[in-house]
Amino acid sequence: MPSPPRRRYKITVAYDGSGFRGWQRQNPPNAPAPRTVCGVVEEAIQRALQQPVMVVGASRTDAGVHALGQVAHFDAATPIPEDRLALAINARLPQDVQVRAAEGAAADFDAIAGAKVKQYRYRIWNSPHRPLGVRHLFWHCWYAFDVGRMQEAARRVVGEHDFQGFAAADHDRMTTVRRVFDCRVEVGAAGGGDGPALPFLAGAESRVLDIVVQGSGFLYNMVRIIAGTLVEIGRGHDGPELVDRVLATGDRRLAGPTLPPHGLYLEWIRYEE
Amino acid sequence: MPSPPRRRYKITVAYDGSGFRGWQRQNPPNAPAPRTVCGVVEEAIQRALQQPVMVVGASRTDAGVHALGQVAHFDAATPIPEDRLALAINARLPQDVQVRAAEGAAADFDAIAGAKVKQYRYRIWNSPHRPLGVRHLFWHCWYAFDVGRMQEAARRVVGEHDFQGFAAADHDRMTTVRRVFDCRVEVGAAGGGDGPALPFLAGAESRVLDIVVQGSGFLYNMVRIIAGTLVEIGRGHDGPELVDRVLATGDRRLAGPTLPPHGLYLEWIRYEE
Repeated sequence: MPSPPRRRYKITVAYDGSGFRGWQRQNPPNAPAPRTVCGVVEEAIQRALQQPVMVVGASRTDAGVHALGQVAHFDAATPIPEDRLALAINARLPQDVQVRAAEGAAADFDAIAGAKVKQYRYRIWNSPHRPLGVRHLFWHCWYAFDVGRMQEAARRVVGEHDFQGFAAADHDRMTTVRRVFDCRVEVGAAGGGDGPALPFLAGAESRVLDIVVQGSGFLYNMVRIIAGTLVEIGRGHDGPELVDRVLATGDRRLAGPTLPPHGLYLEWIRYEE
Repeated sequence: MPSPPRRRYKITVAYDGSGFRGWQRQNPPNAPAPRTVCGVVEEAIQRALQQPVMVVGASRTDAGVHALGQVAHFDAATPIPEDRLALAINARLPQDVQVRAAEGAAADFDAIAGAKVKQYRYRIWNSPHRPLGVRHLFWHCWYAFDVGRMQEAARRVVGEHDFQGFAAADHDRMTTVRRVFDCRVEVGAAGGGDGPALPFLAGAESRVLDIVVQGSGFLYNMVRIIAGTLVEIGRGHDGPELVDRVLATGDRRLAGPTLPPHGLYLEWIRYEE
C-alpha cells in the first residue's frame, strides 16, 4: 500500500479558556510547560496520527480567553479520511477543548497570514445577581449602563485607524494601524426570546451586554481595552468622543481599563476563498 | 438602645452545585466536614449577624445539583434592616453561591413543612458539540431524540401517583405517593430568539432540551430518574407507556437510569401566602 502523501490541514477549534495558560505553547527553561491549548491540541493530533506535528494557530489568545472558532494549520501524512479526522482528534482531547472542523487545505494555506477578518465578543453579565456557575464566562459588572452612548462610541471605533492608544504598551507590532469593520453593543434581555435560557440569569434587572468587534487584525489587548473604554463611556465617566481622543493622540492612558480575560471570546476568523 | 427581638427569616438561595458536596451539612466523625451549601451559608450569616444561627433548607440537593431558588429559614436577633440583610450575607459568601432574597417571615414559617410546590429542571445539551465551558451545567447527550414521544411520556407523569418506581431504593419516606402538577419537555433552538446566546452552543444541529417537573414533593433521585426514563423513551428504547408500567408496578428496574446530578436545577419553591 502506498504511504499517504504529506499535506496541509486546517482545523477550527473551540475551547473554554479557564483551564489554559492561553493558546501559545510555552517552554520555560527551568519549569514544567504550562497547560496551553496549542500544546493539548498538538498532543492529541500526534497521538491520533502517530507522528510529530506542529500546530500553528491564527490568534494567540491569552490565559482565560475563550474561543468558538480559533483556526490553526498543520502538515501531516495520514490515511485517516478528512471526514473522520475531527472525531479521531477529539477522542484524544480533554472536555474543555474540541476540534469543530478539520479539513484538507491548500498547500499554501496559512492560518496566520491568510486571516482576513476576525470577530471577537466581550460578554458582560450586567445584573445584581452573581453569574455563579458561569462566572468564568462573563465579566460581572453591576453598573447602570447607557447603552445608547456605548453604541455611539462603538461606531467611532469603526474604520481604519492607528489603534496605538487601544493597545497594551508592550505590543511588538511594526504598525499599529488596523481596520475595524464593525463594532457594536448587543443587549440580551434576561429570559427573553426562544433561545435556551442562560443558567443563573434571572430577574427583570438582569441582562447580558455583548461588545462585538470585527476587524482585519488586532493589537495586544485591543478588544479588552476597547471594551473597557466603552464601559467607562456607558457608565457616564466620559462621552463617546473619548474614542476620537484616544485614536487622535494614541495615548493609552486616556483609554479605559483592560477588562479581565474571562469575558472575551474569539468567535470566528474568515479567510480568502 | 433595646436589643432587637429574635425573629424568623426566610432566604432564597442560588448556587452552582459543582463545588459543593450538596446542600446538607455533614459532620463525619473522623474527617473534616466537606464543603456544603448549607454550611457555607450558615457561616456567612453567623459572621454577618455575629451570633450562632441554624439554617434549615427546604430541599437537600445532592452534590453537583444547582439551585436558582432554594429556600431556607433561620432565627436571629439583628439590628440589620431587612432590605440590607441579603447584601450583608452576600458580602461574606463565596462567588458560587448567592442569597437572592432575605426577608422577615412569620414565626411559624417552615421552609420544609410549608413548601407547597417545587419546580425542578433537568438540562440536556443535545449537540455533537461539547458543552466546553458549561460542561458542569448540562448533561451532554448526542442522541437524536423524538421530542413528541418524550412530551407524551411527560404527560403520563402528571397526577397523583405512587412514585416508588421512580425513586432510589434507599429513600426513607413513609409514603411514596406524590402529586406532579406539571411535567414537560422544553426545546431551546441554538442561537434562536432574542435571549442572550448560551456560550458554546452553535450549529443548526445543536439545542438544549429541558425536562421540567413541578410537584408537591419529590422522592430521592425522582427527577433524575424521570428524566432518565424520558431519555430512554426519546431514544426509542421504549414507548411512552413505559411511564404507566413503572407507576403501576413500582418497579425501579423498569425505569430509566438516574441521570447525573450536574444537569439538575432546583428552580423555585412556592409557599402558602
